[in-house]
Amino acid sequence: MQLGMIGLGRMGGNIVRRIVKDGHTAIGYERRPKTIDTLVAELGSDGFQGSTDLKDFVSRLETPRVVWVMIPAAVTGQVIDQVAELLEPGDIIIDGGNSRYHDDIARAATLQPKGIHYVDIGTSGGVFGLDRGFCLMIGGEAEPVAHLDPLLKSIAPGVEAAERTPGRTGEPSPAEQGYLHCGPAGAGHFVKMVHNGIEYGAMAAYAEGLNILHKADIGATHDAVASAEETPLEHPEWYRYDIDVTEVTEVWRRGSVVASWLLDLTASELYADPTLESFDGRVSDSGEGRWTLDAAIDTGVPAPVLAAALFARFSSRGEALYADKMLSAMRKAFGGHIELPPK
Amino acid sequence: MQLGMIGLGRMGGNIVRRIVKDGHTAIGYERRPKTIDTLVAELGSDGFQGSTDLKDFVSRLETPRVVWVMIPAAVTGQVIDQVAELLEPGDIIIDGGNSRYHDDIARAATLQPKGIHYVDIGTSGGVFGLDRGFCLMIGGEAEPVAHLDPLLKSIAPGVEAAERTPGRTGEPSPAEQGYLHCGPAGAGHFVKMVHNGIEYGAMAAYAEGLNILHKADIGATHDAVASAEETPLEHPEWYRYDIDVTEVTEVWRRGSVVASWLLDLTASELYADPTLESFDGRVSDSGEGRWTLDAAIDTGVPAPVLAAALFARFSSRGEALYADKMLSAMRKAFGGHIELPPK
Amino acid sequence: MQLGMIGLGRMGGNIVRRIVKDGHTAIGYERRPKTIDTLVAELGSDGFQGSTDLKDFVSRLETPRVVWVMIPAAVTGQVIDQVAELLEPGDIIIDGGNSRYHDDIARAATLQPKGIHYVDIGTSGGVFGLDRGFCLMIGGEAEPVAHLDPLLKSIAPGVEAAERTPGRTGEPSPAEQGYLHCGPAGAGHFVKMVHNGIEYGAMAAYAEGLNILHKADIGATHDAVASAEETPLEHPEWYRYDIDVTEVTEVWRRGSVVASWLLDLTASELYADPTLESFDGRVSDSGEGRWTLDAAIDTGVPAPVLAAALFARFSSRGEALYADKMLSAMRKAFGGHIELPPK
Amino acid sequence: MQLGMIGLGRMGGNIVRRIVKDGHTAIGYERRPKTIDTLVAELGSDGFQGSTDLKDFVSRLETPRVVWVMIPAAVTGQVIDQVAELLEPGDIIIDGGNSRYHDDIARAATLQPKGIHYVDIGTSGGVFGLDRGFCLMIGGEAEPVAHLDPLLKSIAPGVEAAERTPGRTGEPSPAEQGYLHCGPAGAGHFVKMVHNGIEYGAMAAYAEGLNILHKADIGATHDAVASAEETPLEHPEWYRYDIDVTEVTEVWRRGSVVASWLLDLTASELYADPTLESFDGRVSDSGEGRWTLDAAIDTGVPAPVLAAALFARFSSRGEALYADKMLSAMRKAFGGHIELPPK
Repeated sequence: MQLGMIGLGRMGGNIVRRIVKDGHTAIGYERRPKTIDTLVAELGSDGFQGSTDLKDFVSRLETPRVVWVMIPAAVTGQVIDQVAELLEPGDIIIDGGNSRYHDDIARAATLQPKGIHYVDIGTSGGVFGLDRGFCLMIGGEAEPVAHLDPLLKSIAPGVEAAERTPGRTGEPSPAEQGYLHCGPAGAGHFVKMVHNGIEYGAMAAYAEGLNILHKADIGATHDAVASAEETPLEHPEWYRYDIDVTEVTEVWRRGSVVASWLLDLTASELYADPTLESFDGRVSDSGEGRWTLDAAIDTGVPAPVLAAALFARFSSRGEALYADKMLSAMRKAFGGHIELPPK
Repeated sequence: MQLGMIGLGRMGGNIVRRIVKDGHTAIGYERRPKTIDTLVAELGSDGFQGSTDLKDFVSRLETPRVVWVMIPAAVTGQVIDQVAELLEPGDIIIDGGNSRYHDDIARAATLQPKGIHYVDIGTSGGVFGLDRGFCLMIGGEAEPVAHLDPLLKSIAPGVEAAERTPGRTGEPSPAEQGYLHCGPAGAGHFVKMVHNGIEYGAMAAYAEGLNILHKADIGATHDAVASAEETPLEHPEWYRYDIDVTEVTEVWRRGSVVASWLLDLTASELYADPTLESFDGRVSDSGEGRWTLDAAIDTGVPAPVLAAALFARFSSRGEALYADKMLSAMRKAFGGHIELPPK
Repeated sequence: MQLGMIGLGRMGGNIVRRIVKDGHTAIGYERRPKTIDTLVAELGSDGFQGSTDLKDFVSRLETPRVVWVMIPAAVTGQVIDQVAELLEPGDIIIDGGNSRYHDDIARAATLQPKGIHYVDIGTSGGVFGLDRGFCLMIGGEAEPVAHLDPLLKSIAPGVEAAERTPGRTGEPSPAEQGYLHCGPAGAGHFVKMVHNGIEYGAMAAYAEGLNILHKADIGATHDAVASAEETPLEHPEWYRYDIDVTEVTEVWRRGSVVASWLLDLTASELYADPTLESFDGRVSDSGEGRWTLDAAIDTGVPAPVLAAALFARFSSRGEALYADKMLSAMRKAFGGHIELPPK
Repeated sequence: MQLGMIGLGRMGGNIVRRIVKDGHTAIGYERRPKTIDTLVAELGSDGFQGSTDLKDFVSRLETPRVVWVMIPAAVTGQVIDQVAELLEPGDIIIDGGNSRYHDDIARAATLQPKGIHYVDIGTSGGVFGLDRGFCLMIGGEAEPVAHLDPLLKSIAPGVEAAERTPGRTGEPSPAEQGYLHCGPAGAGHFVKMVHNGIEYGAMAAYAEGLNILHKADIGATHDAVASAEETPLEHPEWYRYDIDVTEVTEVWRRGSVVASWLLDLTASELYADPTLESFDGRVSDSGEGRWTLDAAIDTGVPAPVLAAALFARFSSRGEALYADKMLSAMRKAFGGHIELPPK
């Protein structure tokens, strides 16, 4: 089966690699000829061809055309508009990037009168997707999604990527192979969005816990003469552990309840940089965590853990400073308290 | 009635001032003669006398002696031990400082066999207590607390400090006058502890809200070219307000639901320093907020707001840094994300 | 000065009462004649007249007309559209309800080409506003807001409603009188929205703290035989207080740091119903708390306390149930844990 | 090597099974003869023998004796005292249960003068430990821990239980095999405690996210006529997804960032009971989550996610009810708001 891919960056390129290696063919669109040449050299021109011209790209696609758009969210909308002008009824446009699902709902409605099918695919897997396969969360109408099945199967990790869930037997369902049609337009990005919200929460759980281990020596290092502006440590004898956080993340990888892929990665990073000195601790957030909370608020679902995780990222970038100054101002006002200098 | 006061600092001194001005007398113990002399000059030697010698101090007290200890929590225990050696059955020791209520329970049990009564008094009012009176939360046996009533009435703000609660008529209860016997040993400091826990939560509510007002101009100042590491602002047109936070705190003081003494103080601080440039935003916590959470955890009471308020103070002092670096390490591992530099 | 008021419910009626009593006049629009008659009887027909017909209502207004719309947010939009059809350039429409500020921005833009001024006023004061005055947060262009000044001054509480902030002297600013022009269209509702967000946080701080006091007797009542599914209380001797929460809220009203109008109200409610038996604990939220969080998320401001307060309301209405069942399912899966029955 | 095991319940029995199958021998102590007989029948009397008498049990152990205590935390202390009476200098007592690390510190100090070594081992693995092996976190002196190495290696999962972390080569470290000497007395239970704290946070992240998916159909089912006590859904068109949560957990198991053992278990539970109808949603907590927060508070480490996760469990058991009633009381007081009935 043939796939048209717009955007041959890390994600788009690796998806092309996976399908071509699995016997499909791909046509790519990219403005940088060098990117195309590299991929042709790697995959062979039987499997992959590229174009730097959008019309030319579209003309090479077999009908019904399948066009996967894999570019930054900021420009996805306008590129979809451009390509839609060149397509015909029955063709399929896939947004595989990190669009907000609101946009999917709007785009699908816009394209429907033209007979063009819109499919949104939330794609997880990051830099490891080429080898491990990509977890695909899909939104759109049933028919075009079914049409894409051979491609999705090749991109997804496959059933052998995890032990089968007890009780599941026979032909593995798509979900067991790593791809799932979640519902109508937007459902794919909706599920991917919540996925990332959970990711933020789980990451924060590890980070907070490891910070407690990191500070477990405070009873040995603590200055006993506490000032009135600082709470003295009541039981220094309880906090005299010099814990090797790197080794702890390693030991938890085997047999513990918190074993996970995130923990595998954390153990790997700590092994390479045990003091984390290569990081400043300014943690970005890329939208999905915020949108997950917006959805929780809209639907009245309590999400205190996901919220705390998001806000910790904001704080890591200094966004609490004004509020903190306000607190110090109040403390000065009612108690005459003076801020302590940094240690 | 006569009061013996150990510690003539800001709090102890002001309590002495309030009772002497209300017709009682006081004997003070202080190591610094100058502090004593100043207070004698101010209140007259009929109302106040001091001593730099603990034995001499105790010998001047009428029986049953009333000894109020008002010194830093770190040294309260040993001073109570010393003075208890000099007291007789029927005497009363008051801990008016910020001791943990656990210690009250232990001290009361230790002093009981000697016939010495132990009373713990949580004292709120800060630097304004001299004029406004101190809110007193009291723990101990009924009899000694009743004996102290004339003194407590003089120290407390009095019923006129607030409008009477609808339905309350007749002789104002002690609570309406600003002092309350909360229960047996430790109950006073327990209630004061929770008071401070609530204070942390309420302060944080104001600080977070005012921070949102402060950032309400982000749509006007925001750099439109967002990177992949930063969520673009979807609706810059919604955030183009240049709000005068000082004036907002002022307007809320009259007629709004969030009017409070804390807000009065906040408005005052902002009027004096509208940009809060005299603060670094390193917010101390003095124990009660932590102990309140310990109590919530022990008793199984959900306290997410009080916890978030406490943890924001920890973060304001840089204590989240290791966790934040850990998050950046994970993001690099699974997505190849690089930290953004500070703006 | 004359005010036209659409909606003579609790809020609209009381605003009319305040301005008429202060020497202004008002024309009211209401579909229920009885409501009009009652108000005419109370205020006299020199001060107040009403109409059940929108055209008639508008025809009675002096130009430039001032039309204050004070009706449920759900119908505000369409009523503003209707009345705008009847107005002329230079007239002023005020939305005094709880609209989202997004809508203000849109409405102001729609009305501007017609020369009609749009002013949004966030109004705080609740059922006490008639006597205490209403705190007014105002958004819109400078000129029409200035034109409204005489009316706003009459509706607001006035400077004497609170002690003046130290340092503020001379003619009291509008903010000191209880009304504030916060910025262009939407700024009034934006500031009111954040006000309510803070209100949620402060309310939760009190509620959590009082819950801890309420449970402070758990050491006396606790069943000592703990099961493996329940954490035993390590120090029952620390939780044997039978605290009178009603009296605690009363004592905190005088001289304490947490004194506030919310606390006054809490003390009043507890005095009337000490066990809170008239409540089920299903806590509504009316939009502003959610929108405050949306704004925090959009602007990247950490608001963990406000978020926790909002989510606690969702949970109070049973919205965490599915998540809780999921946790029990996980615990059963990895540890064979069985849920404990309700006590 | 020989192990003495006190307590042959699920955990103790499975540890015995693992070591005997790996060529070691074990002596068990249990009050129920039937439990012993079953294990003898299963493992053969060459590998395992049992006793219902503590003295007899101790007499059968080779010196230096290794006694692993694996019984409920509530009785661990007194059993350790009893067995310590029967041991000799050089013997080793292991507490493999869920004791608080404070107790380890105290017990080690008590046993040291007798020359008895105390080792605390936090054990993770739950009902799957027999097959997967147990993750062991160990505290104590270096020498006795080294002595136990052959046993620990047999109990732990082994290096093949997870892919080796990139860069780690040569002989796998103990951590890579699933057991780690974390530090002096208490360090094992300290690390296990934080492990469980993280577990609570990660579990809550999944549960909250899945709840959002569960409610994603609210726009299709929502009653459009909203009351003033309920926020209307602004965009019902965004929430019309009927998402199959079971299939979502399945698809995330392969290739996604949130893949984990907890997710495997969640997918398994949902497959067996897709509506979770077998659960009431009353979530227990067994101590470690609370203690983790106590440690965070003591050491000044922000842990908002772990706290939110713990408090959600308290709320699931109805412990927020009093606070919720208080909020409803306040809302009634300032706004005349009436609680909505349950839907």
